[in-house]
Formats: sequence, structure tokens, C-alpha cells
Amino acid sequence: MSYNLLKGKRGIIFGALDENSIAWKTAERVHEEGGTFVLTNAPIAMRMGSINKLAEKTGSKIIPADATSVEDLENLIAGAVEELGGKIDFVLHSIGMSINVRKGRHYTDQKYDWTQKGTDVSAMSFHKTMQVLYQKDAMNEWGSIVALTYMAAQRVFPDYNDMADNKAYLESIARSFGYFFGRDKKVRVNTISQSPTPTTAGQGVKGFDGFIAYADKMSPLGNATAQDCADYTVSLFSDLTKKVTLQNLFHDGGFSNMGVSDAVMEAFVEKEEQ
Amino acid sequence: MSYNLLKGKRGIIFGALDENSIAWKTAERVHEEGGTFVLTNAPIAMRMGSINKLAEKTGSKIIPADATSVEDLENLIAGAVEELGGKIDFVLHSIGMSINVRKGRHYTDQKYDWTQKGTDVSAMSFHKTMQVLYQKDAMNEWGSIVALTYMAAQRVFPDYNDMADNKAYLESIARSFGYFFGRDKKVRVNTISQSPTPTTAGQGVKGFDGFIAYADKMSPLGNATAQDCADYTVSLFSDLTKKVTLQNLFHDGGFSNMGVSDAVMEAFVEKEEQ
Amino acid sequence: MSYNLLKGKRGIIFGALDENSIAWKTAERVHEEGGTFVLTNAPIAMRMGSINKLAEKTGSKIIPADATSVEDLENLIAGAVEELGGKIDFVLHSIGMSINVRKGRHYTDQKYDWTQKGTDVSAMSFHKTMQVLYQKDAMNEWGSIVALTYMAAQRVFPDYNDMADNKAYLESIARSFGYFFGRDKKVRVNTISQSPTPTTAGQGVKGFDGFIAYADKMSPLGNATAQDCADYTVSLFSDLTKKVTLQNLFHDGGFSNMGVSDAVMEAFVEKEEQ
Amino acid sequence: MSYNLLKGKRGIIFGALDENSIAWKTAERVHEEGGTFVLTNAPIAMRMGSINKLAEKTGSKIIPADATSVEDLENLIAGAVEELGGKIDFVLHSIGMSINVRKGRHYTDQKYDWTQKGTDVSAMSFHKTMQVLYQKDAMNEWGSIVALTYMAAQRVFPDYNDMADNKAYLESIARSFGYFFGRDKKVRVNTISQSPTPTTAGQGVKGFDGFIAYADKMSPLGNATAQDCADYTVSLFSDLTKKVTLQNLFHDGGFSNMGVSDAVMEAFVEKEEQ
Repeated sequence: MSYNLLKGKRGIIFGALDENSIAWKTAERVHEEGGTFVLTNAPIAMRMGSINKLAEKTGSKIIPADATSVEDLENLIAGAVEELGGKIDFVLHSIGMSINVRKGRHYTDQKYDWTQKGTDVSAMSFHKTMQVLYQKDAMNEWGSIVALTYMAAQRVFPDYNDMADNKAYLESIARSFGYFFGRDKKVRVNTISQSPTPTTAGQGVKGFDGFIAYADKMSPLGNATAQDCADYTVSLFSDLTKKVTLQNLFHDGGFSNMGVSDAVMEAFVEKEEQ
Repeated sequence: MSYNLLKGKRGIIFGALDENSIAWKTAERVHEEGGTFVLTNAPIAMRMGSINKLAEKTGSKIIPADATSVEDLENLIAGAVEELGGKIDFVLHSIGMSINVRKGRHYTDQKYDWTQKGTDVSAMSFHKTMQVLYQKDAMNEWGSIVALTYMAAQRVFPDYNDMADNKAYLESIARSFGYFFGRDKKVRVNTISQSPTPTTAGQGVKGFDGFIAYADKMSPLGNATAQDCADYTVSLFSDLTKKVTLQNLFHDGGFSNMGVSDAVMEAFVEKEEQ
Repeated sequence: MSYNLLKGKRGIIFGALDENSIAWKTAERVHEEGGTFVLTNAPIAMRMGSINKLAEKTGSKIIPADATSVEDLENLIAGAVEELGGKIDFVLHSIGMSINVRKGRHYTDQKYDWTQKGTDVSAMSFHKTMQVLYQKDAMNEWGSIVALTYMAAQRVFPDYNDMADNKAYLESIARSFGYFFGRDKKVRVNTISQSPTPTTAGQGVKGFDGFIAYADKMSPLGNATAQDCADYTVSLFSDLTKKVTLQNLFHDGGFSNMGVSDAVMEAFVEKEEQ
Repeated sequence: MSYNLLKGKRGIIFGALDENSIAWKTAERVHEEGGTFVLTNAPIAMRMGSINKLAEKTGSKIIPADATSVEDLENLIAGAVEELGGKIDFVLHSIGMSINVRKGRHYTDQKYDWTQKGTDVSAMSFHKTMQVLYQKDAMNEWGSIVALTYMAAQRVFPDYNDMADNKAYLESIARSFGYFFGRDKKVRVNTISQSPTPTTAGQGVKGFDGFIAYADKMSPLGNATAQDCADYTVSLFSDLTKKVTLQNLFHDGGFSNMGVSDAVMEAFVEKEEQ
């Protein structure tokens, strides 16, 4: 489907690693809706990914950038404005990484160098991106900045480890910077708190398949997919949502407001009765 | 603007009193986006309003209904399905009324008959509408039900009186019924928590103009208007938001996540220093 | 244990039906802490209960009152002030009832007369109690009013039925009235959102035992018991919490901030794998 | 007053800088309630402070520790257990620092080395403290860990700068670690979100006096003082609150649930009308 919702709008999309990633699906949908954009990833992620295919399909340029480097971000943003022929209307931040998770360090046994690195990549990178956009005055009025997050920022999911805290930090940055971006530039900043999604990154988390099934059974509409998230992100980039800002928006088939579903309760009771 | 976002979709819009009302603006926007609908209001509200003009402009039929009457709602919904030629895809509930507010009874001096009437009109009507839609199986899969609410459901706004409690009740009904509507019919149910809006109804609230100005100065993007709300509602009726459910969505230029803005703080400090 | 935390304080305790009820345990604990109080219940509940034993044990007078009747509440409060020899320092509202639950009407098939009656008993009674206390100026400064609630006010628990909406309404009343009670009388108003508790009332809810087990496994500290709740309520009546107001306080072993626990996840995965 | 609420309990109190600090008042109150404890501060903070007076008054030992150093924390905790003659029952974390605030760097112009240092001191130190306590099994069952925070973690207060994000991170750590501490050790972990308090640290924030006045007028019971916070913390260390965990507890005279108060609205309207 296409509604031309993003015709004439220019953007930057971070984190399209492979075709399972939400950023990838979003790039495809934004392209369908008439938006143009630059794709970016960390140089190291790009070696592992297949982003060239996406760039070709959507007619986009790739500008590699380490999102923890202010210098790289300055190059990226200057390059994007030049490439796209004007200021930026939308940004998708879809970046997250925990070395503690990767290396199997339990939350009660963190290696703090790794924790700090995860915070820098997963959350501080969002502040840096916005600070460069703000200082360079690179966003158009009524532009829209979105970062992807997860409900572990509000509630405990034991295997999510230190990514929970990184996401809480990220969401706070969205509010804090969103105030200044709104007041000074009329730009909105929101986070989407997405269902657990079987991306390549997510698959690294212990017990992820079981958890996907659990979330699906808990959610009255089932889990939101990466494709669903791409659609939702398009709505947040469009002019239909100009006054939505500082929000953390749950996109999860209803999970976030469930205490327990009949389906989960039944599974639990049957197990208990055995 | 028009994106054809609602082409082929059928709906019911409650509460378009006059051209200041959010429901009125929403009806116009839905019409632009290709949706067809039935308009409805309480018979008494219709005598005061000018809904015929809207019906003419949007090619819509009007079916009067007292939203506290299950019988009226059954007639409305059966009539809408027949008139529109199929099941319903979207519903807007924009109904609220407090006799205590109208008659100037303070929150600490309620007349409980009036309180109960306000609850019935402002909140229970939403349950009744959904119960009829659910029992008659009148909604299409992936349909969208939206009710308008206000942040007084979460935080104290002294002059909002018993409408605060009615809105809290309404939002709870959205969650509670949303679960069953999602699980059984794949229909989503959400509330939009809108900026204070200078509608004809809102103007009855004491000190409303000052409050509008206050909210505007507190919100980084300023207050969301009725027109903005119509745009946002369109996005929630569209297929871009299929997995958003059980949510209370703040549409308020950022007010809901503000502690204090520089603009409000400045006004306060200057006043204190005099 | 006793710390003399409530020495010299006078109160009213609603809803001590039998020795399983939270209000009963609270009355015992308040008595241990040196507080004096009047017990009250609906006349009909008193016939079913054994409240005389509690009154004897704690040296308390019983004043029956239908909490939906303003007249009864006026008699109760005047009687309590007289009996106790001064204004009131603490109030516990522990009242809830849904005819739809009792009679097995599903949430999607409510009988609205019953719904309205449940709202009146479970939530509006709290407003009425506070309105009488406020208008009669019957509370001492730095007094404390507490109502018991349940997390179904925020999140969906399908079998909780219309009590979910009643609790949302009750919590809103606590905030709304709490503002005026704080500003004008220096009285605080809070709700305690308690773990599911195997009281006589709770046992009427379908599948309650399974749910108790589920909540216990989800909560890092296990469910809070009625006895735990009595302790916590004492802390909220004491002078240690004078500046806590308008809050909904989760007392639930941590359940409210859990996404999923390892214990629940294990039960779910094992069931799925069978 | 004294109720002997903490008789026999042993603890560690971080952050008692001078007699304006909340930690100082808490130490005094804990001492009155019969608790014994070790005081600790960063070596650099101790040179500036007058903590010896407090140690003398409460019969406490001081063990300096840089809370960002795991080694220092290990020494502190081992030393405290030895000094107090047994495992720990309560911990107060009252540590926060932003170099960006101190040096006047705006939130949109952060120096990221400073941001990272602030996060390490203000939030990560809480994780480190708990990790050492957990790994050394140094807490008694039903012990209580409390950290002080501020509502800027949820809502925007422009001058709070990067401390807002640090507090969001801190609160997330409380939940994340609280799960494991509850499940494995029966220890509760909570944060107190306190009114703005005229401590020596707070006075560094721009426009702090005006903000204190604003918060006071917004709160139905006025701002909670450092002394009030000490009382409240005592209740959270006591056995009355054993099942409260993973919570962020607002202790603020009601501010957190206010939309606007009459007093603030009046000041605003009068200013506007000039």
C-alpha cells in the first residue's frame, strides 16, 4: 500500500542491519510513501549486514557512522542534508547493544566497562544525534524524531539484562531533548516501545523464542511485527501526528496494559495442576 | 490534504455538536480521507447543534441516539450497518457532560444524582456502545474504536470537577473492553487524551481561557487543536496503527510529560517577585 | 509487635467482614499500635459477619452504615467523633462489590443496573465518605485517609470484570478529593493497591486460586498478605508519611513492575513444549 | 519522637554531606529509632563536609568510599559488616552529581565526558553498591535498600539538565536489580522521589529558589522537607513495609499527581492579565 504520506520528506534511518530489522522494513515503507533518506550504520555493523541491497532498492545513499562519535554524526548529518537537498524531516534511531548480554554476563555480575559501552551505544548515541541535529539546525520545523525502545524500561524482564536500563535512559533522553527540540525548533521526539521482535539482534537474548510466544499469548492482538512497526513509524513521521511529542508509545498488541490474559493464565494453571 | 487513508472504511461518529467540536473536525477529515459514516448525537444535543450542515457536506446520514440507552444504540448500529452497506470499521466516541459542572456544584459538594448521570453519559455510554457492537458482531476485523478523554483522569485539574473521575472510568472501560474486543474480534480500542480545546462544551468550565493559555505555555509544541486531533484520529482509524490497542494516547503538544516549562516558570517567578 | 505508632489517634474502619478481611487485620494492628476507632459495615454485611468479636477484642464500638447513604455516613461520622472524643485522624475504606461478578455476568454482557450499583458501592461511597468528613470538618490536620484498590485499575485482569473500572474510578476520586482535602485541611488521601488476597470476598472471583498462585510466582517477594497490608496501612496512618498524598501505592511484592518472572516464564515454556 | 522501629537493625548511609542533606537528617532519625550504621562519602566530599559531627552524635563510624569504585565499595561493605557485628538491614543511596550542571553546560550542549562521569556517579554507583552487597551476600533477609531520586526522571524540568536522565537510569536499576535481590535474598529495593529540597547540592541548580516556591504552591500539602523525607525513609527501612518493592515512591506533598493547582493558576492568570 502507499498513501504518499511522506512525499517530499527527507530523513536519516539508523540501524538497518538486515531484512529482519525494523529499520529495514521502515526504510522500505518510507520509500513506498514517497520519503527519501540516507541509510547509516556503524562501519562494523555494515560489514556484517547487507545494507547495500536496501540502498539499491530504495535509491538511497549509505553514509557509515559510529553513532557514539560526534564527529561521525556531524559528517553524517552534513552529508545527508547535502545528498537529500535540504533539511531533515524524520530520523529513526534503531540502535542497541549490550556486551554483557552478548558475553553472557548476568545482571548481578556486570562488567562495568561493558555496561558503560552499552549505554554509550544504545542511549547516549541518541543524545549525540539530537545534539548535532539541534546545533547544526538541521531539522525542518514539524520534523519527527523516533527511537525504538522496549518495555523493559518500565517493567522487569529478567533476561533483558542491562539493556533495560539503557532503554530507560534512552526514553528519558527523548523527553529531555524533546522539550528543547519542540520549544526551539517545533520538532517532535518520541519513542516506540515495540513488541519483542525476532530480529537478528533480538535472537541473541536467552530464551527469546519462548518469550516471543509468551508475549504473543499475553497480547490481545498478538505481537506487533517489524512490518507493523514500519507502518506505525510512517504514521509518526507523517503530518497526521504533529502535536504528539515527549511520548513513549506502546506498539505491542496491547501487552503493556495487560495484567494477565486468559491464554497465559490457562497455560499456567494447566502446568500447575500436573 | 488527502491520502485516501480511509477509503472503503465505514464508521460511526458520536458528538459532532457544532463546528468547534473535535468530532465535527474529525468527520470532515475522515470524509476527505475517503471514509463514509453515520453521524449521531443525543436528540437534545441535535436541537442545539447544526449537525445537518455537516451531514450535507460529508454526504452522511444522521441517526439520533441517546448514548445511555441500549435500545437507541441498537437502533443506531443496525441503522449504520444498513446505511453504510457493511460492518463498521471505526467509531469515535466524543461524549461528555457533568451536571455538577454546569450547575456550579463544587467537587466537595456534589449532588450525587447529577454525578451518577454524568458517569452514565460520559463513561458508561462507551461501554454500552461497545457492548452492542460486540454482541451484534457489528465491527470488521482490524476495526478501530477511539474515545476522547482528558488528562484530568491522571492528574488533578481542580476545575474539571467530577469529569476527571468520569474520564478515569472511561479510560478503564477502554482497556477492559479492549481486551475482549482484541482477543475475539481483532478490533483495537484506544483513548486520545487531548489538549484542552476551546470547544463549545469546554467553554462551560470555569476559568477555561486562562487554563488554555497555561496549557499552551506549558507544552513545548503548544496546545493541539481540534484540527490536529482530527488528523491524529485519522491515523488511529487507518491501517497504519493496527497493533496499537488498550492505550491512552496523549495528544497535547507534550504537556503530559512536562514538570514545568521555562515559559510557565518565568511567569510564576515574575509574579512572585512583584 | 507494637511501636505505639498510633497512640492517641482516632479513626473509622470500614469493611471488617470476618477475620480473613484486610480491614479486620488492620483493625487488630491499629489497636496494637495504640489507635482507637469505630468499626462500620453495611447492615447486611454485618448480619453475615462476625464483627462483634473484633469489636470486643479491640474495645471498639460498631456503628452500622450503608456507605451509599449520605445520611448513614453523617450519622456514622457524628457518632464516631462523639464516641472517640474528638476529630478523626485515620479512615480505612475497604469496600467493594460487583453484582455482575456475583451473578456471573460477563464483562461483555453487563446488566447496567448492576454495574451502576457496583460503582455506587465500590467507588462513589468513597466520595460520599470524604464529602461528609470534609463538610463536617471532622478530620484533624495531618490525618490520613486510605482506600484499598487493585491493579486491575491500570491493567487488564479479565475475570475482575467491572470491578476494574470501579477501582479506576475509586483511585481517581482519591486524587480529585485528595487535592481539596490536602489544600484545605492538611489531610492526605491515598490508595493501596494490594496483591490479590484470599479474603472471603475475593474468593467469589472465578479462577481466584490459580490467579493467587500466578501472582505469587510473578512477584519477586511473593504476594503481600492481609497481615502485611495491615502493617503497611499502619505506616500510612502514622506520622512518618505526612507528605505522601494523591498516591496509588502498590503493595504487592513487586508484581506491578514485573514484565515476566523467571518462575512464570518457566511454567509457560514447559507447558508449551509438552 | 521515637518508636524503636529500627532497633537491632544495621545499615549503611551514603551521602550525608552537611546538616542540610537528606542523608544527614535520615541518619539522625535512624539513630533515634534504634538503628546503627556506618556513614560513607566520597573522600573528596568528606573534605568539604562536616560529617564527623554527625558520626559523633550518632555513635557511627565513617568509612570513606568512592562509590564508583567497586574496590572501595567492597572495603566499605566488609568494613560495615565487621563494625556493626552482622549483615546489613538497610542502605540509603543519596548520591548525585552532574558536571554539566556545575559548569553551566546546557542540556543541548553537553560535554559527553562529563555526562558519562555524572551517570557513573549518580546511577551506576547504585548498581555497583547492590552488586557488591549481592555477591558478598551482605544483606539480611527482609532488608531494605532505598535510593533518592527526583521526578525529572518522568517529566521535564528544563534546568535539571542531564540529572534527569541519570535519575531515570537510577530508577531502572532499582527495578532491575530489585527483582534479583527480591527473588534471591528477600531484600526490597525502592526509590523515593522527593520534593525539591534546599540542600547544599540542590542550591547549585539554576533558578532553584523560584522552583522551590513553584513546587510548594503546586503541592496540596506543600513540599516535603528533608526532615519529612527522613521520617518516610524510616518507614521504608522498618518491618511495616516488607512487601513494598520495585517501586518509585513519590514523597512530594502531592506534586506528582497535580495537573495544576489553584494557587499556580492564579499566579499565572494574574501575570497574564497585567
